[in-house]
Amino acid sequence: MSLTDPASSRDNLWQEDWDVSHDSPPSPSLPRSTSHLGRIPEPGGPEPSYPAEEYELTPNLEEWSRSAHRHRLRPNYCDGDTIDWWHEDASERERWKRLVSQHGFRGFISSFVDITKLWFVIILTGICVGLAGGWLDILVMWLSGLREGRCTRGFLWNQIECCAGVEPGQVCLDWQPWGKYLGIGSILGQSLIQSIAYILLSTAFASSAAVLVISYAPYAFHTGIPEIKAIIGGYVFDSFLSSWTLLIKALGLALSVSSGLSLGKEGPLVHVSCCMSFLFMRLFSQFHLNESQKRKILAAAAAAGVSVAFGSPLGGVLFGLEELDAFGGDFDVMWRGFVTSVIAAVTLQYVDPFRTSKLVLFQVTSGSDTWLAFELIPWLFLAVIGGILGSFLIKLNIAAAVYRRNSILHEWPILEVMGAAAITAAVSYLVVFLRVPSDDLVANLFQECDPQRIDFHGLCNPTAMWENIFLLVLTGIVKIGFTAWTFGMMVPAGVFLPTIAIGAALGRAVGLLTQGLYRAYPKAWLFSACPPDPTVRCIYPGFYAVIGASSMLAGVTRMTVSLVVIVFELTGALSHVLPIMISVMISKWVADAFGPDGIYASWIALRRYPWLAPIEFRDNGEIAADAMTPVNNLIVFQGVSPLGELRRLLETWEYHGFPVVQNGMLLGYVVREKLRNFIEPLLAERGGATRIGRFHGLQDGDSADLSPLLEDTMQLRKEVPLELVMNMFRKLNLRHIMFTQGGALTGMITKTDIVSLTTAHFAHRGVLAEEGPPISSR
Amino acid sequence: MSLTDPASSRDNLWQEDWDVSHDSPPSPSLPRSTSHLGRIPEPGGPEPSYPAEEYELTPNLEEWSRSAHRHRLRPNYCDGDTIDWWHEDASERERWKRLVSQHGFRGFISSFVDITKLWFVIILTGICVGLAGGWLDILVMWLSGLREGRCTRGFLWNQIECCAGVEPGQVCLDWQPWGKYLGIGSILGQSLIQSIAYILLSTAFASSAAVLVISYAPYAFHTGIPEIKAIIGGYVFDSFLSSWTLLIKALGLALSVSSGLSLGKEGPLVHVSCCMSFLFMRLFSQFHLNESQKRKILAAAAAAGVSVAFGSPLGGVLFGLEELDAFGGDFDVMWRGFVTSVIAAVTLQYVDPFRTSKLVLFQVTSGSDTWLAFELIPWLFLAVIGGILGSFLIKLNIAAAVYRRNSILHEWPILEVMGAAAITAAVSYLVVFLRVPSDDLVANLFQECDPQRIDFHGLCNPTAMWENIFLLVLTGIVKIGFTAWTFGMMVPAGVFLPTIAIGAALGRAVGLLTQGLYRAYPKAWLFSACPPDPTVRCIYPGFYAVIGASSMLAGVTRMTVSLVVIVFELTGALSHVLPIMISVMISKWVADAFGPDGIYASWIALRRYPWLAPIEFRDNGEIAADAMTPVNNLIVFQGVSPLGELRRLLETWEYHGFPVVQNGMLLGYVVREKLRNFIEPLLAERGGATRIGRFHGLQDGDSADLSPLLEDTMQLRKEVPLELVMNMFRKLNLRHIMFTQGGALTGMITKTDIVSLTTAHFAHRGVLAEEGPPISSR
Repeated sequence: MSLTDPASSRDNLWQEDWDVSHDSPPSPSLPRSTSHLGRIPEPGGPEPSYPAEEYELTPNLEEWSRSAHRHRLRPNYCDGDTIDWWHEDASERERWKRLVSQHGFRGFISSFVDITKLWFVIILTGICVGLAGGWLDILVMWLSGLREGRCTRGFLWNQIECCAGVEPGQVCLDWQPWGKYLGIGSILGQSLIQSIAYILLSTAFASSAAVLVISYAPYAFHTGIPEIKAIIGGYVFDSFLSSWTLLIKALGLALSVSSGLSLGKEGPLVHVSCCMSFLFMRLFSQFHLNESQKRKILAAAAAAGVSVAFGSPLGGVLFGLEELDAFGGDFDVMWRGFVTSVIAAVTLQYVDPFRTSKLVLFQVTSGSDTWLAFELIPWLFLAVIGGILGSFLIKLNIAAAVYRRNSILHEWPILEVMGAAAITAAVSYLVVFLRVPSDDLVANLFQECDPQRIDFHGLCNPTAMWENIFLLVLTGIVKIGFTAWTFGMMVPAGVFLPTIAIGAALGRAVGLLTQGLYRAYPKAWLFSACPPDPTVRCIYPGFYAVIGASSMLAGVTRMTVSLVVIVFELTGALSHVLPIMISVMISKWVADAFGPDGIYASWIALRRYPWLAPIEFRDNGEIAADAMTPVNNLIVFQGVSPLGELRRLLETWEYHGFPVVQNGMLLGYVVREKLRNFIEPLLAERGGATRIGRFHGLQDGDSADLSPLLEDTMQLRKEVPLELVMNMFRKLNLRHIMFTQGGALTGMITKTDIVSLTTAHFAHRGVLAEEGPPISSR
Repeated sequence: MSLTDPASSRDNLWQEDWDVSHDSPPSPSLPRSTSHLGRIPEPGGPEPSYPAEEYELTPNLEEWSRSAHRHRLRPNYCDGDTIDWWHEDASERERWKRLVSQHGFRGFISSFVDITKLWFVIILTGICVGLAGGWLDILVMWLSGLREGRCTRGFLWNQIECCAGVEPGQVCLDWQPWGKYLGIGSILGQSLIQSIAYILLSTAFASSAAVLVISYAPYAFHTGIPEIKAIIGGYVFDSFLSSWTLLIKALGLALSVSSGLSLGKEGPLVHVSCCMSFLFMRLFSQFHLNESQKRKILAAAAAAGVSVAFGSPLGGVLFGLEELDAFGGDFDVMWRGFVTSVIAAVTLQYVDPFRTSKLVLFQVTSGSDTWLAFELIPWLFLAVIGGILGSFLIKLNIAAAVYRRNSILHEWPILEVMGAAAITAAVSYLVVFLRVPSDDLVANLFQECDPQRIDFHGLCNPTAMWENIFLLVLTGIVKIGFTAWTFGMMVPAGVFLPTIAIGAALGRAVGLLTQGLYRAYPKAWLFSACPPDPTVRCIYPGFYAVIGASSMLAGVTRMTVSLVVIVFELTGALSHVLPIMISVMISKWVADAFGPDGIYASWIALRRYPWLAPIEFRDNGEIAADAMTPVNNLIVFQGVSPLGELRRLLETWEYHGFPVVQNGMLLGYVVREKLRNFIEPLLAERGGATRIGRFHGLQDGDSADLSPLLEDTMQLRKEVPLELVMNMFRKLNLRHIMFTQGGALTGMITKTDIVSLTTAHFAHRGVLAEEGPPISSR
């Protein structure tokens, strides 16, 4: 395993090019530093550039591949760009071909080392993600335990470690609440100390997370999934995956989860996984120099993140497939994602943070493998409620985000977090089901009552049914409000766990109600499938909580297959997969009626990332001409222009690139940065500004040949249906399409236009977009 | 739920068209039956057809959509064609738009009914596939039991029903072997009767299956998966999914499985599921009139087939995704597949053919959730063996198929089946592990030895270790031979179960060997992780059988994710997913070194179906020009030709369609059948043959306007890399690409050319192709 210095390996690459290009002598009129970029045709040789048609590539392939080395192998992407998938894939293939074409043993060894590097990164990512997930759990347990008390056996012991030897049902004496530990006698004093410690520490944790995020890595806030979706879709956002972001996100996540804010660790763990694999990829130039390879590994890392967050390796792969659309129909990439997921899950099982030796986080201990037909009624009710509330939560969350952006709060993010944490802690302390950590709550709501176990805060007390129902509904409602506000503050925050908790609380409430009805009217017609004796157990409210959770999740995330798989891997409730599936489907339908976007798609629209949803777009008879920017409104470069004129245009317009035409006929597309890098040294010469740059036409001694800068572009007639244009963007991963008629440019559509079109229905589009680099692909 | 008569609804559709087209009066010079197909332009009106460029569509969209109704809504596909995905999808969208654009309540109701029909078909398919799978199991149990004896409680009782009340460990007295039932006293007489009954009935079952297949539904032979893959990929092969095929395949499958031939039910069940959904789709015109909708439902049905075959709903979905490439990146379709799979699995669980109340077919009852690092050595050995033998099995099977085709056996398929069944039965009767049905064998090989259970034919006898190893290896080797021959005979036959059995036998043998080594040298360094006391159980040979089976499967099918999921859903061995994964990966690598194609891909190549493998194609610097048929070798139609000349060309050349050019410039593409249907009535008139047909140019009174027949086609420059062409075919589901230069046709590539290119390495390509309709898409 050789550790290649990325910078030096890039230099080597350029050196090779230099060697190759020696056969055509550098023009004496160009300064040495750029001379190998120019191309001097033989006098009287064939006209090298044709008017671009359909899918244009410079016809001389050898020339193309050489110019690819020079200009295309490493385009200067900067944050805000969209990558050129075709080109990245082509350069990876080029690299691979060069590797295996080496003679004999050397070729074999090189390709073997190459594959080894890939699997090294994948396995390392899997292991590290698993370790990170495990240690995060342990850290969170310790920190959130600190809010209530400490272990007498050692300050650094968390509650599970502290009470490891104690039998279930016995009281753990080593773990002492603060009141008791500080030796306060009076009950009142004890509760006062308890509540003060709880609120103070919660606020302290949350504000430290916010301080860390704001001071060191602003991109570490929020869930990260919208950004990961955009990045995997081709958006360039390297600073989002930096090592600082990794460190701060992991630390901040532990702090924010421990603070008791209404947030989960799932989305941020996906971000952490991606940062990790990004870090490992920097070891090898084959990944960090190729944007498409990078994204294929990131997809696997994201799957591993979900796998660890839920203990659900298959769910992770399907999440990558469905939500991130990460594998692009390439089953090799999917297999890598699967391997990473499983390795991460196995590592997590090895770390075993909860000391249960199980991957299943929230085991459902249902006494029965069967369910009764009449239960579909409350479950359908839950599904509808889940759809409505899920949709409501999204709307509330967006309203909160928009309000935050436009109000004074935007200026005081740390104070906001502090306030929110204090309020959350104070309110939570009053309601027992809010006070416990969300994952504890969910685990207990999913479990059936069992006389063998300690009752979870009176949940199993049959005489307190109405109190419990009230408390559970209250918990659900309060949590909706808190979650809608919290998801978007300057702390790492995921939305999965709070959503599960809301759904589980409401589901358990409906379950208790149904159970109560049955106990009151055991002989009613509805309950005829149950034994008429109400002391026999017939209705299992724990499973109602699972149904509630999956409905709520479906309403918020709009996932389908991956959601069902995650829920049943999370709970182990394989026998109940049919009702879970039905509730997910109904809830998604109901929620879709209130608006088509899930919470991640909404945030993508809020931040205006160039991301195309993997859904079938249906036009209403529109054609491409209705959506394109017509040629009159486009900034086009002429095939023959003075360099000064080009500079003026480059300085005036900030688009990513420009079409080049000659007498109205399209020659190709030129990327702003490439052109700028190429002409700046020429302009620095004497008389550079008046020198002629030619994208087209025979070169004479004094003109600068710009034709190697021209890029191939997909061309269509402007009369094609808009659906077709959409489909091409999505399936072929294009950045822009030119519209031509007989070779003449008539218009252009960029990915940004397409994204605007698909998010046109969204009222707050771009509200949270960065003011920094222009996020445009034109 | 309204049951629409397909024929009448189609007539309505045409009637509507007729009403619409009334606004341009039919030309009196044309006979009424075709007049609404002609288009009479206004004199002096705009020139309606442009030279085709890029992605050409008739520019007047209203005209286009109307002509779509006339000529495109229902192309006459016949078996052997490849469907036009763009067009099918467009016509479905058109239909949907018409539905929802109806006013008010009517529009809502129509779209609701439409969706209901979809889910009706999906749910019905799921339930029926589940029922079919369950009843097939019951039937097979009865038939294969008959070979050994009968139930004294009734002739129609199978062994499980017969012995239902008997405790495990007790002998079932109601089930009597033939020798005992017929009252034969001597042991020798009993065994003679037993063996004769076994061999005779086996042969009788197999030959009846062959007679059924050959007499009624020749397409019911073999597994069906290669054909389903091709059909879902766009190949038209309706007779493969007919009701007769369904009936014969289901019956024949029960017979052939019961006959003890070395075959499984998995692939044929996928075929049966697809036939069922095809049958249900005929209820509604929205499916049976649209080829792309049809394929989306077929994909779901195929997933359900796998789900029932293995009791693995997730495995089914992933099989559809990975092996069939059936969902085309559309998550709605994947969700439908998931729903169908789960419903089928739940139905199967409800039928509960094995009376275990479990979906898990071959439960692994490992005593331990952990495994030891040194076990990776025998497992890696198994993975390598699995890869080598899997590859060998494919090669042997193809050699057998080729030999059968070219030898006299081809003429006597029933005799061949008879002979093979008799030999299989006779040999199997001698070796105990071959005699039992394969699924019994696999279930027992996967289970650990347990003193509580009856020992499975001495497998757990520690003193008979070497005998058991010998028998297991013998079983594996003999089964490889039998399977290679059987898979391809004229009976329904799947290759999954025999492959699992081979792998399980070899795996168990390696497990026994490892266990024996440990017992002999418990203190060896290798076993230092085990307790030094050999009576303590440390090595679980049952799990070695699972590893063997997954390695063998990976070698034969080359599946990855779906295979791992199927294996762990099949066995419930979630804790051991990491070694399963590693063995699958290694085995696939090893097998790929011997040839890239799995058994299904090989059979697709043997039968030359136009199917593109969902893998990334890498060219070696070739460009499209290297693979295309240059224009000089193409049969092209001229834009203006006498109809007689067109007829002559149509009669001479059997291609699917032809490019149309005018002075070398491409006008479009015309499909053979459409053109023939259009011009035949014209030719029947007096002087029809000399009449001018115009694809292009101003129409005068006497010429026939053929321009509405022109189809849009994708155009590229012939200099583009071949990889790009491949990718476009695969991702955009094209049938052909034209190559042009400045609008002039330079060449053409069809899907058939591309398929030939990707299967060029395969020596026996097309050996088994039908002689019937030409399988060509040109």
